[in-house]
Amino acid sequence: MNGAESLIRTAVSAGVEVCFANPGTSEMPLVAALDSVAGMRPVLGLFEGVLSGAADGYGRMAEKPAMTLFHLGPGFGNGIANFHNARRARSPIVNLIGDQATWHRRYDAPLTSDIESLARPVSGWFRENRSAETLSHDVAEAIAAATTKPGCVATLTVPTDCQWDPVGDAASPQLVPKAPTVTIEAVEKACAAVTSEGTTMLIAGGYATRRRGLEAIGRIAAQVGCRLAVETFSTRLERGPGLPTLERVPYFPEAAEAFFEGVSHVVLCGALDPVAFFGYPSRISRLVPDTLPCTTLAKPTDNIEQALEDLAAALDAPASVGTPNRPAPQLPTGDLSLEAVGQAIAALQPEGAIVVDEGITSVGRYLPASVGCPDHSLLSLTGGAIGWGLPCATGAAIACPDRKVIALEGDGSGMYTVQSLWTQARENLDVVNLVFANDIYRILQIELHRAGVDNPGPNSLALTDLSEPAIDWTSLSKSLGVPAARVETADQLVEELGKGIAEPGPCLIEVRMP
Amino acid sequence: MNGAESLIRTAVSAGVEVCFANPGTSEMPLVAALDSVAGMRPVLGLFEGVLSGAADGYGRMAEKPAMTLFHLGPGFGNGIANFHNARRARSPIVNLIGDQATWHRRYDAPLTSDIESLARPVSGWFRENRSAETLSHDVAEAIAAATTKPGCVATLTVPTDCQWDPVGDAASPQLVPKAPTVTIEAVEKACAAVTSEGTTMLIAGGYATRRRGLEAIGRIAAQVGCRLAVETFSTRLERGPGLPTLERVPYFPEAAEAFFEGVSHVVLCGALDPVAFFGYPSRISRLVPDTLPCTTLAKPTDNIEQALEDLAAALDAPASVGTPNRPAPQLPTGDLSLEAVGQAIAALQPEGAIVVDEGITSVGRYLPASVGCPDHSLLSLTGGAIGWGLPCATGAAIACPDRKVIALEGDGSGMYTVQSLWTQARENLDVVNLVFANDIYRILQIELHRAGVDNPGPNSLALTDLSEPAIDWTSLSKSLGVPAARVETADQLVEELGKGIAEPGPCLIEVRMP
Repeated sequence: MNGAESLIRTAVSAGVEVCFANPGTSEMPLVAALDSVAGMRPVLGLFEGVLSGAADGYGRMAEKPAMTLFHLGPGFGNGIANFHNARRARSPIVNLIGDQATWHRRYDAPLTSDIESLARPVSGWFRENRSAETLSHDVAEAIAAATTKPGCVATLTVPTDCQWDPVGDAASPQLVPKAPTVTIEAVEKACAAVTSEGTTMLIAGGYATRRRGLEAIGRIAAQVGCRLAVETFSTRLERGPGLPTLERVPYFPEAAEAFFEGVSHVVLCGALDPVAFFGYPSRISRLVPDTLPCTTLAKPTDNIEQALEDLAAALDAPASVGTPNRPAPQLPTGDLSLEAVGQAIAALQPEGAIVVDEGITSVGRYLPASVGCPDHSLLSLTGGAIGWGLPCATGAAIACPDRKVIALEGDGSGMYTVQSLWTQARENLDVVNLVFANDIYRILQIELHRAGVDNPGPNSLALTDLSEPAIDWTSLSKSLGVPAARVETADQLVEELGKGIAEPGPCLIEVRMP
Repeated sequence: MNGAESLIRTAVSAGVEVCFANPGTSEMPLVAALDSVAGMRPVLGLFEGVLSGAADGYGRMAEKPAMTLFHLGPGFGNGIANFHNARRARSPIVNLIGDQATWHRRYDAPLTSDIESLARPVSGWFRENRSAETLSHDVAEAIAAATTKPGCVATLTVPTDCQWDPVGDAASPQLVPKAPTVTIEAVEKACAAVTSEGTTMLIAGGYATRRRGLEAIGRIAAQVGCRLAVETFSTRLERGPGLPTLERVPYFPEAAEAFFEGVSHVVLCGALDPVAFFGYPSRISRLVPDTLPCTTLAKPTDNIEQALEDLAAALDAPASVGTPNRPAPQLPTGDLSLEAVGQAIAALQPEGAIVVDEGITSVGRYLPASVGCPDHSLLSLTGGAIGWGLPCATGAAIACPDRKVIALEGDGSGMYTVQSLWTQARENLDVVNLVFANDIYRILQIELHRAGVDNPGPNSLALTDLSEPAIDWTSLSKSLGVPAARVETADQLVEELGKGIAEPGPCLIEVRMP
């Protein structure tokens, strides 16, 4: 057994099943070990940003880490944007980065670089392996760190010689520490807040937005009648009958000012204190008004489900809550519009759908339209780094082969990691990719206007326009092995989306936005 | 005038003409300043790796920096792989990274990250701007650092509020320091080496491989009859009548052992002491045998042209050297092969061509085939981070609109930054993209074999194979606005390449490799 084989053995014993990989020369012993040790499924991507986003999507749905395998600093560099999103999502991921042989590193060969400096900003745990003998132990620690709830990105560099050198044995998986229980005082303070005079708002985040947490939140709300909110971009928001409907904290600071009007107390339940994505002249950074009392029931890293159940118990909340009567979404017809897009998806998405939302300005009406939908999971862009939707959908489909994945993707964002389609075809993944083609970075034209540029000049327009040349998404998708269709009316969207949902395997629908 | 406008004014005064950009919200004042201040051409890319590679290609050909404009840490992260190549190439580049407003940063909004940690590994110069008043001064320093010969990647973070805050004036461009002259002792030692008993080998790198340096090398060789070599991957190698032919230092260490046989002295002329790309069991790291005397005439950062001319003068070398009679390349016919590919390109490339080589295993015969070609520049993958060829060709074409660019690209590498084709179409760049489609990461199958895996298992094959699904390069190219054709014989390649060279604007030829 060599170091690489000991690493794979330990990872398989710890329950890691998938390796999202684009290896190079320095990873060859690990590649060979994927054949000599059974139990790990390799998934190839044609660009590392596909794989880092896929690992994020996989981690959100599987609630355990996949491995990634990348080629030195530049290979990892290509994955950084989506690892940034994964860090903000607290997704469990174990990264392996192949490195120069320990004795070769000092020669500063062309592919050598400071991997630690690149990896630290997106990693909650980082280590440089230094010998074959400690390699399987190091990966066991990485897996334990990544798996500690809610999860984190754990990164291990693996020199080539430590992969090929012989070792005696493979380390056992490590015990994964439990998330800390919140104090009785925190529960009591939250209890006092929700039972105080005026309107209390709970803001849910992290594991509070999965089924167990949401059921407790529903019971609390049924007992005390508070407002329920969710952080703007959720790692994973469960929705469906029996679960409470949450208002989304607004994206723009001026909208947030209106949002918190009439609220007398905020309780953070696994959410961070919400802040604006960007600072604007004369606008607030922190979204909750400084005059508003704000209590933390649980931090994102706490055992938030337990804290919510403790709060429900302290309030003597009912054991279960009846489902409100929510109308089923209706199929749209006629011209395409933001309303029609939201309605079509909501009306057609099947039970158990995983909806991956990077639709940016095109899907603003989907969230209200889908309130009455059957059970589904909604994954959002937690870190703001675009090019995440198609990769995340790819990983989510690998984690949940029995569920239909629907990726809502902007054309600008989609072009960042379009290579995802090839992996979807290769693995025959059950993903319907909806690309909303408006031939523009519309959010940037909105932001130009917000920056006071009401009549953008030719250079500003050139940097926000995608229409010249037009991108033929349908041909592009087919060229990478994914069948595709173009739709220009609501009726065509309904027809193609219906077909895409009915048929197994990946497809792409180019939605020509007006 | 605001900070952004002062920055653009200073950059334009310093001679910066092009800004490769993919901006976001935090860069809006800089985008607007590209309209309110004249003289800077913005070039949009649909992915930052396109832009960082384009800035590299531009810098190699223009011998002055372009600016880039990226959106926070994740946007910059997407450019890291090609900035790694640019760092190894010592290309002049000035990066602007938009950052959160100074007063918003402490809130750790979702897109906030440690930009310095990400940027340092690929930057020769780094600064965080902290006020609008110093912004144009900071960019003047960045430009001077980037422009100091041979060049470097200079990175400046620019908080949004420093872009929009008012300022009094724009700083003047800074004086650019000259590269240091080498000492008389270094010239004398090199002189002694080349006139000593036995065979001396000069290894050229950096600016030694451009016209002025090569002319001096030719004169030296004419006088003393030494062997002439060039580092394996050149930033820019000038070739053509009147310039000496250089042997390339081999890639694999075992080939290097044979290469240096019979050599009694090595003189480094702007090249680093060559090392193997990777360490292999029982193979050398440093390619020049430790027993061989090795003298440095000039480091890559020295004034190498002057040093070579001083050496030629010290040797009393002839003022100019006659052109050896080199046969013109012949057109191939029949089946496609490595020979046919090399011959076809060599036979058809026009005078002044810029050949960008990321053909990896498909273009091994091009270098010898093209010895008799008219003047051309050859750009190589200096840092080993793949996905560089199409972007570099894009930037080279912007730097040299009167020259034909020929990109030699592998299918695996090409898929990394395929979005480059869209920018080529948008800017109507004169690039012939040859994609060698063998449906495989062939270099990795070679490396698997070198690692002792003679019968790769299904997982090893899956991680090196690109055939399932087949990538339809012709459709892919057309979908992004670049006309394309597929060729399966040498005659078809000759026909399509001839057409591509004759016609202006970008095109792509999918070369189906046997």
